[in-house]
Amino acid sequence: MMLLETYRERIDQALMSLVQQREPAGLYEPIRYVLSLGGKRIRPALCLLGCSLYHTEKVSDSLYPALGLEVFHNFTLLHDDIMDGSEMRRNAPTVHKKWDDNTAILSGDAMMILAYQLISRTPQKALGPVLELFSQTGLEVCEGQQYDVLYESRNDITETDYIEMIRLKTAVLLGASLKTGAIIGGASPEAAHHLYQFGMDAGISFQLQDDWLDVFGDAATFGKNIGGDIVTNKKTFLLINALNNLSAAGKKELQFWIDKKDFDRDEKVKAVRNLYEDANVSISAKKRMNEFLQKALLHLEQAGGSAAIQEELKTFAYGLMERSR
Amino acid sequence: MMLLETYRERIDQALMSLVQQREPAGLYEPIRYVLSLGGKRIRPALCLLGCSLYHTEKVSDSLYPALGLEVFHNFTLLHDDIMDGSEMRRNAPTVHKKWDDNTAILSGDAMMILAYQLISRTPQKALGPVLELFSQTGLEVCEGQQYDVLYESRNDITETDYIEMIRLKTAVLLGASLKTGAIIGGASPEAAHHLYQFGMDAGISFQLQDDWLDVFGDAATFGKNIGGDIVTNKKTFLLINALNNLSAAGKKELQFWIDKKDFDRDEKVKAVRNLYEDANVSISAKKRMNEFLQKALLHLEQAGGSAAIQEELKTFAYGLMERSR
Repeated sequence: MMLLETYRERIDQALMSLVQQREPAGLYEPIRYVLSLGGKRIRPALCLLGCSLYHTEKVSDSLYPALGLEVFHNFTLLHDDIMDGSEMRRNAPTVHKKWDDNTAILSGDAMMILAYQLISRTPQKALGPVLELFSQTGLEVCEGQQYDVLYESRNDITETDYIEMIRLKTAVLLGASLKTGAIIGGASPEAAHHLYQFGMDAGISFQLQDDWLDVFGDAATFGKNIGGDIVTNKKTFLLINALNNLSAAGKKELQFWIDKKDFDRDEKVKAVRNLYEDANVSISAKKRMNEFLQKALLHLEQAGGSAAIQEELKTFAYGLMERSR
Repeated sequence: MMLLETYRERIDQALMSLVQQREPAGLYEPIRYVLSLGGKRIRPALCLLGCSLYHTEKVSDSLYPALGLEVFHNFTLLHDDIMDGSEMRRNAPTVHKKWDDNTAILSGDAMMILAYQLISRTPQKALGPVLELFSQTGLEVCEGQQYDVLYESRNDITETDYIEMIRLKTAVLLGASLKTGAIIGGASPEAAHHLYQFGMDAGISFQLQDDWLDVFGDAATFGKNIGGDIVTNKKTFLLINALNNLSAAGKKELQFWIDKKDFDRDEKVKAVRNLYEDANVSISAKKRMNEFLQKALLHLEQAGGSAAIQEELKTFAYGLMERSR
């Protein structure tokens, strides 16, 4: 993404200066820590692109809201990591591990306020709709996280439930990032809506792919330990579909691996992957991914705007699929 | 408070309808629960009074922001209760006790977003300054909570440190509630500033009194178990001043009671209260309370506006002192 590269340094600098020299250190140091761990900065990039799609000259008007979206995203990771008991994030200890739960709760709260502070720097004309979209999206992200937690202890989750969960937890924020930029860039409500749908559908495709890569991806490319979701019995698209589609015998074997406390990691990953292949879940996942990607691209077309930025956004969407080889 | 009584039903109704019929229940039910437990609704009342001080006709313009301040306050209680491990609040189990920590974290996060959603319903003209004040205040409340946690494990806290901590943790939100109303009501920046200072100074006075009442208050009036702070070694104005002012022998005895794991409740409360009396902390606390109250009332005078509402606010401030008999 050319535009992202142009803005990345400014984004990173602005994020770092955000909480510099604020006291008490016990509150702000964990925030500095989280924001310094990097990440792809996809949300601010999408916000800037969304703005420049309609108004190339005024793209810097969307810089602070773009940062707000990134800070909000990092806030959700911080609190999710407490809830999930995750110890590592971006190859570094999570805040609640490096400090403690209370620090992670409170610093996360402060991050959400910082996010709103940045969103509030939206130009006056667009402030109302941008705030409304941001709050609506924030609630949806919380709802998605609640469904995610809930579904972990339930065995009757359908594919539709699962897709709705990832839509809320992950995809709506990508749609909202684009739409925030679009609103600031002066897009018509219809265009802004299509751009939102593009981001959301691409986001669902992206998340399905993430599930797929964990099992069928190439370790070198994916950069994570293949099979991590299998080891922890994470309720992914693949696991849910396998539970719904396997024969009675296959289901029984899958349940055996889910319940087994002592196991050889490689043995479990291999056995479960074989069961996934029996249930054809790799194919159905790829089918779904592609469906959502195609839907996304249709919405992108209808969103109009600058042809060059349309091209960048298309590249971005295809880039998502690229990761799956 | 006449105006408060007029609006209380509307406030309570609006708070209850806020999250009705929202799904998932696991996210919104704890929010309904917290908001249904009541409380004095001081912050929304101050916001409405702040508005009507300058613009009696348009006081309903400040209703939604007033609700936002109340939801924010309840959000802080929810997260603070996790951090402090508190099991009861308003005579009912706390959310993290009735559900669990994860639920309390996530429902609290959603409450903060709901608070911003309500604040965002400020009339367009006042939205920018109101949002800025709200975010600034929100960060200060987090800072105050962080200092509170930090000070619990430190033995070198001065009276000044302590007052700054309660200023941030409690008093600024009272000032901000009044100022939010004032901004919406069209007050001049100077008037709004004085009204903020009135609320803040009265809030400090109120909090000092809370500390005092826990030890020297009348159980029937105060409605809490007298001595609760002594039992838990809470670092109050009284404890900090006693540690700083007692003789070496007195300090040693106080430290003995602080360190003692097994003790008779009444015996400890009585012994520590005697030490507080030796250190004259009751008098110095009352002196401080009164100083802040007087400062508050001077600011109120300078805030101008409707004489009738000035009177209501004065009654409110004196009402705070009333509780100490």
